[in-house]
Amino acid sequence: MTDSRPLPLKEALAQACREIEQSIDRLLPPVSGDESLLIEAMRYAALNGGKRLRGFLVLETAALFGADHDAALRVAASVEFLHAYSLVHDDLPAMDDDDLRRGKPSTHKKFNEAFAILAGDALQTRAFEVLLEPATQADPTIRAHLALALAQASGAAGMVGGQVIDIRGEGRALPLEQVQRLHALKTGALIRYAAEAGAILGGAAEDDPRRLAIRAYGDDLGTAFQVADDVLDSTASTEELGKTAGKDEDASKSNYVSLLGIDGARAEARRLSTQARDALSSFGPRAETLRSLADYFVERRS
Amino acid sequence: MTDSRPLPLKEALAQACREIEQSIDRLLPPVSGDESLLIEAMRYAALNGGKRLRGFLVLETAALFGADHDAALRVAASVEFLHAYSLVHDDLPAMDDDDLRRGKPSTHKKFNEAFAILAGDALQTRAFEVLLEPATQADPTIRAHLALALAQASGAAGMVGGQVIDIRGEGRALPLEQVQRLHALKTGALIRYAAEAGAILGGAAEDDPRRLAIRAYGDDLGTAFQVADDVLDSTASTEELGKTAGKDEDASKSNYVSLLGIDGARAEARRLSTQARDALSSFGPRAETLRSLADYFVERRS
Repeated sequence: MTDSRPLPLKEALAQACREIEQSIDRLLPPVSGDESLLIEAMRYAALNGGKRLRGFLVLETAALFGADHDAALRVAASVEFLHAYSLVHDDLPAMDDDDLRRGKPSTHKKFNEAFAILAGDALQTRAFEVLLEPATQADPTIRAHLALALAQASGAAGMVGGQVIDIRGEGRALPLEQVQRLHALKTGALIRYAAEAGAILGGAAEDDPRRLAIRAYGDDLGTAFQVADDVLDSTASTEELGKTAGKDEDASKSNYVSLLGIDGARAEARRLSTQARDALSSFGPRAETLRSLADYFVERRS
Repeated sequence: MTDSRPLPLKEALAQACREIEQSIDRLLPPVSGDESLLIEAMRYAALNGGKRLRGFLVLETAALFGADHDAALRVAASVEFLHAYSLVHDDLPAMDDDDLRRGKPSTHKKFNEAFAILAGDALQTRAFEVLLEPATQADPTIRAHLALALAQASGAAGMVGGQVIDIRGEGRALPLEQVQRLHALKTGALIRYAAEAGAILGGAAEDDPRRLAIRAYGDDLGTAFQVADDVLDSTASTEELGKTAGKDEDASKSNYVSLLGIDGARAEARRLSTQARDALSSFGPRAETLRSLADYFVERRS
């Protein structure tokens, strides 16, 4: 990270992924004691071969805002804990009832439902704890700010709220605005948080134009991600995805593909990705990796 | 609260209960919009007629440490959100599978499992969010401290860890030390946090002898509460408890009664309650309500 030339995206992603996995590993307790099965389930859920796109966003924006890299790795792990908790609970039989996650048994299949519920609960708690520990940042104002923004992105007015609109939308046709709001909450809020967290960690004020630019980027990126996800869900196989494909169609859910058609959804993903790139114009060449990420989000195959 | 003479315990509890319910009501969103069913479930779980002992502890210790009463009401609501989330998830079919909570259908019976999982998740998030909002305390160091201590009390090394040991202990005999550790984590950690939160809110340093005294009080109180709970579980009826009685026996769980006998458990509860009172000696007459609370914890009938 001392060389100022950005790495090509794939190398940067692979390197960040390794570093984030190490950070996650360090920040979870070792498997021992009476709670060992809980720790095992937390580790299984959090160290499951994810692409770490959210953590990568934290690292990249933290670098843009001059934040400490080790601190950014803690924030990246925290966002991944929050994401992992949401996946574990989403996969439960009472929710999406999914047996597979990234090609492996989902947490409740590998352990059982009780441990999946509790591991998810404890991963959410750990996400806040890591942000609030003094090791993340000497300045408690920044720690409190990071944790508050995460709560806002993930609670009833964020990710969980979006999940509820999603459940309620099964079997009925939702208009485009409602599908947009659903995803802005369900997946968009955490992706935007991941982008903005690097700016917060770097001490950028709420009205700093550079921070507002990163927010706008995160917003567009989050929506682009979801549109591309809907395209993948309707075109890729379960094997390629590592999770059950075609689930929206089975559950008669409205999504970008059912509303815009495959070609329309692809065009919308490209439009959002371009808009996300444009939001970064003031950052110059240092933001090139984030620009490539916007393309990657809509071109990925799994 | 301007009169310096403490109210008799029952009046103080009843008044605090009313104020805490109002605080909870204010701090949860109104039921409206696409997420209305989630908000309803969160409100059902959090406004369910609990005794608000944890919130009361916050208010009482906050007053002892000169903290602002309105701020203390926010912290009290936050602790009750955390407690409510744990009850909703504990009652789920995959966990304790309890249909009744305080004489009413538990959240997953009133709504469904998905909404109970999500309402619990969102209540946990809201607990952290409320602590971290600037309205709770102008000083971000104190807000970050309050939220970090809550995470430590409620995660894998606290409440959730204890719940796991509890599940693992079903059907096998646990030695006394393990039952003690189980409860120190499962119920004790949050009760101690509730007591200590008032001191943190009042700005007491970690090594302030008065804060250490409150910690010791909270520790003893938490254990006394659990011992008394085991006595109640083995002697009271389901109607009196408002939740299913005799559950430990049904699940062959080791508890204080199975380990010490009814008389032994009662004596242990009284010993802990006296020890809790003694921890408060340096506070003089202003801590009289907290002393009475220690008696109340072991004398309660439901």
